[in-house]
Amino acid sequence: MTAATGIWPPAATPFREDLSIDTERYVAFCHELLRDGAHGLAVLGTTSEANSLDFEERKSVLEKLAASGINPAQLLPGTGAASFGDAVKLTKHAAELGVKGSLLLPPFYYKGVSDEGLFEFVSEVIARVNNKRLRLYLYNFPQQTGLVWSSELIAKLRGAFPETVVGIKDSSGDAKYLDTLLEKFPGFAIFPSSESLMVDALGKGAAGCISATANTHVKEIRALFDGWQSSKADAMNKRASAVRALIASYPLIAAVKATLADQHKHKGWHRLRPPLTALTERQASELRNKLAAL
Amino acid sequence: MTAATGIWPPAATPFREDLSIDTERYVAFCHELLRDGAHGLAVLGTTSEANSLDFEERKSVLEKLAASGINPAQLLPGTGAASFGDAVKLTKHAAELGVKGSLLLPPFYYKGVSDEGLFEFVSEVIARVNNKRLRLYLYNFPQQTGLVWSSELIAKLRGAFPETVVGIKDSSGDAKYLDTLLEKFPGFAIFPSSESLMVDALGKGAAGCISATANTHVKEIRALFDGWQSSKADAMNKRASAVRALIASYPLIAAVKATLADQHKHKGWHRLRPPLTALTERQASELRNKLAAL
Repeated sequence: MTAATGIWPPAATPFREDLSIDTERYVAFCHELLRDGAHGLAVLGTTSEANSLDFEERKSVLEKLAASGINPAQLLPGTGAASFGDAVKLTKHAAELGVKGSLLLPPFYYKGVSDEGLFEFVSEVIARVNNKRLRLYLYNFPQQTGLVWSSELIAKLRGAFPETVVGIKDSSGDAKYLDTLLEKFPGFAIFPSSESLMVDALGKGAAGCISATANTHVKEIRALFDGWQSSKADAMNKRASAVRALIASYPLIAAVKATLADQHKHKGWHRLRPPLTALTERQASELRNKLAAL
Repeated sequence: MTAATGIWPPAATPFREDLSIDTERYVAFCHELLRDGAHGLAVLGTTSEANSLDFEERKSVLEKLAASGINPAQLLPGTGAASFGDAVKLTKHAAELGVKGSLLLPPFYYKGVSDEGLFEFVSEVIARVNNKRLRLYLYNFPQQTGLVWSSELIAKLRGAFPETVVGIKDSSGDAKYLDTLLEKFPGFAIFPSSESLMVDALGKGAAGCISATANTHVKEIRALFDGWQSSKADAMNKRASAVRALIASYPLIAAVKATLADQHKHKGWHRLRPPLTALTERQASELRNKLAAL
């Protein structure tokens, strides 16, 4: 099984008024992203508010996507959790469903934990999932977790589990960290979290991009992925980066959802689960106007 | 129902070799802490590795304690979770079991969230648990969560839910923050997380203490609580603080468990769930010798 490549949007999750998942709308949105050019879906990530969904909801979402006709090989769900046991159960469930792989956050409650402890965590997850089809993509997001997958730890994990630990999504935004990964780990499926970093990273061997704003601009980002070596690359890159910078100048998940609300003409897209909050009407209207003017 | 007062150890969790909970040993240990002077048990806290237990285990632990004859009114479990939905379910389950109250962490995945978002989180938990017996003790541990229950937010929560939001456990170790709470919120059940801060805090109206080292030194800490205004208070305080400082000079949870392993002559107490790791043999033996020499 080759590792994932291309554009894998971390599909946002629409909520009903009572904050339950609007499953029909969610499934339809996922199909739309695939039709619009996504190679697959990095569902249940940070932008999806996966860590605000409960244990049962996270399993249910995956099952519903599979039942709707999406090939599980086009899914790269986040299955990390603060709890070791929940991470094992979610990762096992996803592997048994036949997904392409799992994005694994480090266990993110305790801080200042050692590389040894994180190695033990991943080893135990792999041993307990006990499924040859399991493929793990490490999920690096120190701004939320307070923890980093160090390059020493990644090297150790790849050495111990070469068939299983096959890639990483780096949401740190730290270009130096990303460059170190690209340099040290050829053949590792490395995904920056922003299209602004993608073209440079593709030149250095990155696999693609898992970006929040692929929820709202998947066609443009797919075109950039396909054409990054073409004569139009510079212009496309400039425009995609400008859109990204504008949306990311607001609280990112709320701004993505506000833009989805406009694109789908459905106000429900504005809803976030606490502790996250929606953009104010003023922010949303300012963002809308600036996006239209770009 | 009056708020909790006194010494409520955050009981540590013993694991079997396969890292499952050693339930029999755990239940016996909880009974022992109560016999040795604990007013109640702040089970499923940070020292209990609650955030490394899975959703089902957290419910099961509480049910087993209640079934073993411990009065649920002597339990103050941690029921917080990164996920809104899991926090609601765990808090509801505990309230229905008749516990004294729940220690509620802020939802700890997302960082930089607003007081407004945290207020919304607590409001929704209260509305969805929908149980008049619910009592919440906020759990402040910014070193792990990256979030703080600000005094403005606490004031707002007390104003909105005076019968429900009745106390706080402060694990920040920040004496200034603690003093601000004690000054601003008379009548609020405020628990510092260390016996070293307890005597000073009791003088300013604190309710007691929820301390990791009450796992290993509950008799001494109880005596200090009972005698903090007596002629022996200074000597007891000095000794308790020295023990605390020694144990806390190692990774705290691992050091508590190493000491429990000695006290109970059972090596299994050394085990922690990943990502946490046990003390090395050398550290454990050094800690043992220094404790004996105190």
